[in-house]
Amino acid sequence: MLPPAVLEEFVALLGPERARSDADTLALYAQDETPGRCLPEAVLFPTCHADVVAIVRLALRHKLPITPRGAGSGNVGGAQPTKGSLVLSFECMNRILEFNPADRLIVVEPGVVTDDIHRLAQSANLMYAPDPGSSPYCRIGGNLAMNAAGPRAVKYGVTRDHVLGLRAVAGDGRELRSGGRTSKYATGYDLTRLLVGSEGTLALITEATLKLVPAPERTASFRICYASDTTACAAVSRVMQQAVVPCALEFMDRRSIQAIKEFGAAEGLPPGTEAVLMVEADGPAEDIPRQVAALENALQGEGLLEIQTGFTPAEIKQLWTARKSLSHAVKKIAPLKINEDVVVPVSRLSELVAAIDAMGTLHRLPIVSFGHAGNGNLHVNLMVHPDDAEEMARAYACLQELVETVLRLDGTLSGEHGIGNKKRKFVPLEIDAETLGLMRELKRVFDPQGILNPGKKLPD
Amino acid sequence: MLPPAVLEEFVALLGPERARSDADTLALYAQDETPGRCLPEAVLFPTCHADVVAIVRLALRHKLPITPRGAGSGNVGGAQPTKGSLVLSFECMNRILEFNPADRLIVVEPGVVTDDIHRLAQSANLMYAPDPGSSPYCRIGGNLAMNAAGPRAVKYGVTRDHVLGLRAVAGDGRELRSGGRTSKYATGYDLTRLLVGSEGTLALITEATLKLVPAPERTASFRICYASDTTACAAVSRVMQQAVVPCALEFMDRRSIQAIKEFGAAEGLPPGTEAVLMVEADGPAEDIPRQVAALENALQGEGLLEIQTGFTPAEIKQLWTARKSLSHAVKKIAPLKINEDVVVPVSRLSELVAAIDAMGTLHRLPIVSFGHAGNGNLHVNLMVHPDDAEEMARAYACLQELVETVLRLDGTLSGEHGIGNKKRKFVPLEIDAETLGLMRELKRVFDPQGILNPGKKLPD
Repeated sequence: MLPPAVLEEFVALLGPERARSDADTLALYAQDETPGRCLPEAVLFPTCHADVVAIVRLALRHKLPITPRGAGSGNVGGAQPTKGSLVLSFECMNRILEFNPADRLIVVEPGVVTDDIHRLAQSANLMYAPDPGSSPYCRIGGNLAMNAAGPRAVKYGVTRDHVLGLRAVAGDGRELRSGGRTSKYATGYDLTRLLVGSEGTLALITEATLKLVPAPERTASFRICYASDTTACAAVSRVMQQAVVPCALEFMDRRSIQAIKEFGAAEGLPPGTEAVLMVEADGPAEDIPRQVAALENALQGEGLLEIQTGFTPAEIKQLWTARKSLSHAVKKIAPLKINEDVVVPVSRLSELVAAIDAMGTLHRLPIVSFGHAGNGNLHVNLMVHPDDAEEMARAYACLQELVETVLRLDGTLSGEHGIGNKKRKFVPLEIDAETLGLMRELKRVFDPQGILNPGKKLPD
Repeated sequence: MLPPAVLEEFVALLGPERARSDADTLALYAQDETPGRCLPEAVLFPTCHADVVAIVRLALRHKLPITPRGAGSGNVGGAQPTKGSLVLSFECMNRILEFNPADRLIVVEPGVVTDDIHRLAQSANLMYAPDPGSSPYCRIGGNLAMNAAGPRAVKYGVTRDHVLGLRAVAGDGRELRSGGRTSKYATGYDLTRLLVGSEGTLALITEATLKLVPAPERTASFRICYASDTTACAAVSRVMQQAVVPCALEFMDRRSIQAIKEFGAAEGLPPGTEAVLMVEADGPAEDIPRQVAALENALQGEGLLEIQTGFTPAEIKQLWTARKSLSHAVKKIAPLKINEDVVVPVSRLSELVAAIDAMGTLHRLPIVSFGHAGNGNLHVNLMVHPDDAEEMARAYACLQELVETVLRLDGTLSGEHGIGNKKRKFVPLEIDAETLGLMRELKRVFDPQGILNPGKKLPD
């Protein structure tokens, strides 16, 4: 329990409204979108950089761990409090500090909702490219912490590729600035990209200068139905070997389609559909027909059942309905999904999908896989009943096998969700001991007392 | 002087041909393309990763500094030996370890010449995007060390944006691997981008996995002549505010045009030309006319004298002649060029160019500026006689003013050449003391004895 005198110091710093320890608030911040919860000691709501500096220094003095939090929409437990920790919520640091279309940049605080950046950029015919599925409610600080991505990453890259500079507070209370406002920078060490994806374990980002790109004039979407996972994966490989890079290339496997059918959202899928691709092209209106032709050509091949093309916003929305219904649909299969976010080189995707299919049979588990196939990034969902100990044991065995398979295929544990507290134990399978040792030493440089988001990212 | 017994240990390790201390070899490796030289104690030519590990460990044992070297084509003294150092030349580690068009990646050793990567990628209709001017002879290890770029950076980004993973040897002899083979990666800390641009001061890169992109089908080039620097800069700003991002947007200022005229390479420039832009668009053949029209439209405006468009390779070559003749042309003005590589946000470019003009007048120095205007990246060349002490004093005063101006305009000291030993003293003007302190601590994690490229990148 936090001694009342210590809590009083935080109240004195932030005011009673912004340093809360009432039961309701603690309960509200005890978890993120990941299963598992732990009550924090207090929840702090800084409103500016100076607040964050003061919080870190006060926490240091009392050796209190800090769990940073954006919208709490992560699904690896990155914002899950640890025992005795203070949640530092960035919700109230949600100002857009500068919007500069002439230099194609925007300066934001970490609590800004990602879609607010999208909308403002769009108002000047610009685009902030990363588009995580949670963009209507997730906050940019969380995107930066986890190196979030989304469908557009296949063409435009991930969060890390769209950050010019950062302001941050290290775990030892030091303030730092990295990068700048220019598209080229070769001066200091690249702390910017080191902090992006470090899951709040090195420093707390208090300000980010983000890069904007010209907004595409028009978008064309396809829904393509295949007779099998294998033939759909072969099409992904063909798409990614020709010159037109789509701005989305999403895959839904056989089990996903089954879930959608059971959910009643499979309207219009031709009979025999066992896998679906969603493809999007974007660019100038004049150039769309050329892109569509090239993509349609690449999508043709064995197992193709139907290509459906949509051009109006309403048509595009309809095409995406099945994909968007998936997260609801899978909940019908079993109450808990163990959601992995693995990546393999695109050429190995069909091997991965086949291996997952075999694992599902072997371990007698429904496994629903879908995701950003153009990056080789699959969300693999093991559907389980958490109260069924025997099933859970099978699930964990299956998970271990999945990770080993991904690494054997030259892949990585996480493409966009990060490691959090859920996947730490697998990290040593991917990163060798010497490199991990070095990462731990970097952590100690930024956060010698280990107060920033303990129990996340790096294994014990 | 290196004790003969120590030299013998390196000879025993690498063989006499690859551990040299003869006067000719030492003289050859005493400098890079930057003024200033210092004889190393020995020059070592590893042929594989294990050699580099062994060299670092042996150097550590004897506390010998190592100066890593690619082609020696840098111009900030990054590969200039320091007193008592061993040059480690990567020339003999020049194998392409894997070329994988299906996954759009290539795995190379650091001694591979950048253009060899360009050619191999092109053979599969792919492109390794970074294109430093020295690409016919520079080596990829140097590009990685300095975060090199080139004209295409305006559309495709810099070296850092095209690296998927690295293998390296830290200054304490530890071997490390970072990143991987996938376009998405959110697992460990991003050591890959931390090492890129660290100028060999943290670790020696022994293997790099580089990203390839589809090769553009066609290129269109323009040469555009303006009546003044100001009107040319205004055109740059217009180009960078519309949706077609050119794959090159190069600027030559009034003094550059004068140098080209004096050099006799100004053939065909219309009378009154005081500034020239070179613009290139690339993409699918079908889409080129649309891009050309949009760019021509943006290039129109006050001060425009002529737009000349070239489409055949021969025409494009001719258009670039004046730009390419510049580095030779400036040598006619004075024997030494002090070459800065500053960057400002694109919207501040005209302010920078005007300030440079005023500085040239104030300090009575010919200053020739040209470069990658689309990124706000100018190469500012102060032309001096190194034996004229009074002129050199004026040059240094001017340099100081230039740096202060760039920082006042929210810019950075270096866009693509790096810091080396030439610009270290200016770094504290840009990076605050706390952040610099943190960078020094990172350096100590990787290289506790400080044997890797001492005297470079970070200020004393």
